[in-house]
Amino acid sequence: MNPTPGPGARLVEIPAFDCRHLLELAQIARVAWNGPRGVAVVPVNYTIADGAMWFRTTPYSQLARECGGQWITVEVDGLDLEGGAGWSTVVRGVAEILDGNDVPEHLADFQVWPAGPRPLFVRVEPVELTGRKLLPPPVET
Amino acid sequence: MNPTPGPGARLVEIPAFDCRHLLELAQIARVAWNGPRGVAVVPVNYTIADGAMWFRTTPYSQLARECGGQWITVEVDGLDLEGGAGWSTVVRGVAEILDGNDVPEHLADFQVWPAGPRPLFVRVEPVELTGRKLLPPPVET
Repeated sequence: MNPTPGPGARLVEIPAFDCRHLLELAQIARVAWNGPRGVAVVPVNYTIADGAMWFRTTPYSQLARECGGQWITVEVDGLDLEGGAGWSTVVRGVAEILDGNDVPEHLADFQVWPAGPRPLFVRVEPVELTGRKLLPPPVET
Repeated sequence: MNPTPGPGARLVEIPAFDCRHLLELAQIARVAWNGPRGVAVVPVNYTIADGAMWFRTTPYSQLARECGGQWITVEVDGLDLEGGAGWSTVVRGVAEILDGNDVPEHLADFQVWPAGPRPLFVRVEPVELTGRKLLPPPVET
């Protein structure tokens, strides 16, 4: 069994306005899509710029091969493992694959953790932006 | 722009044998499936027992309403945000929804972060178990 620190928290929806802010607080998103062998989930570095979420990838990646022009679902979260709480936001939109020469110049600074060239960019303009968080339980009176 | 601490790491596959061990190290999984409104991704507490991955839920949850008998993809990861590295494992299998009265007795101890009764269990026997990790870059000579 894994440890289970949470005393019991309440799950509430996060307004889209606040979800946008939360996206500034993390570095890794999990990109999910319905691929030829079922639903795939891949963690990636991301950045937010010019009204969209951006990833970098290679032409050989599953992301590049399967996602262009497809709907993707992107999950970002922040967990408080000791407190048993956290937030999660989900972005949905259509993935657009762009060559590095075709993206705004300031995106050249966007670095990702894996080594090697990442000549392609994936751009997702959020069509849906939702989130929910676990609040601490109300104080008993 | 989000911080980008990684100096450039190598992405390698993790053997299934090692993925099984990594699943003991985390508390939260992201469950993804192809639902009626596209691919959904929901973070949940999980435990490993009796050859399967288990979640708890309510009858009203999206998970309970959409996943019974369906293939789901479950992602678990461990991130080293300062080092720009990490691992990710993905379990795929068919979600089986069980009443709390029909699960092994020792699973009654499995607590989740959200408050309130969670009378249903979701059981996923891994049909596929894959993973990958980012290794530090090789030392230059």
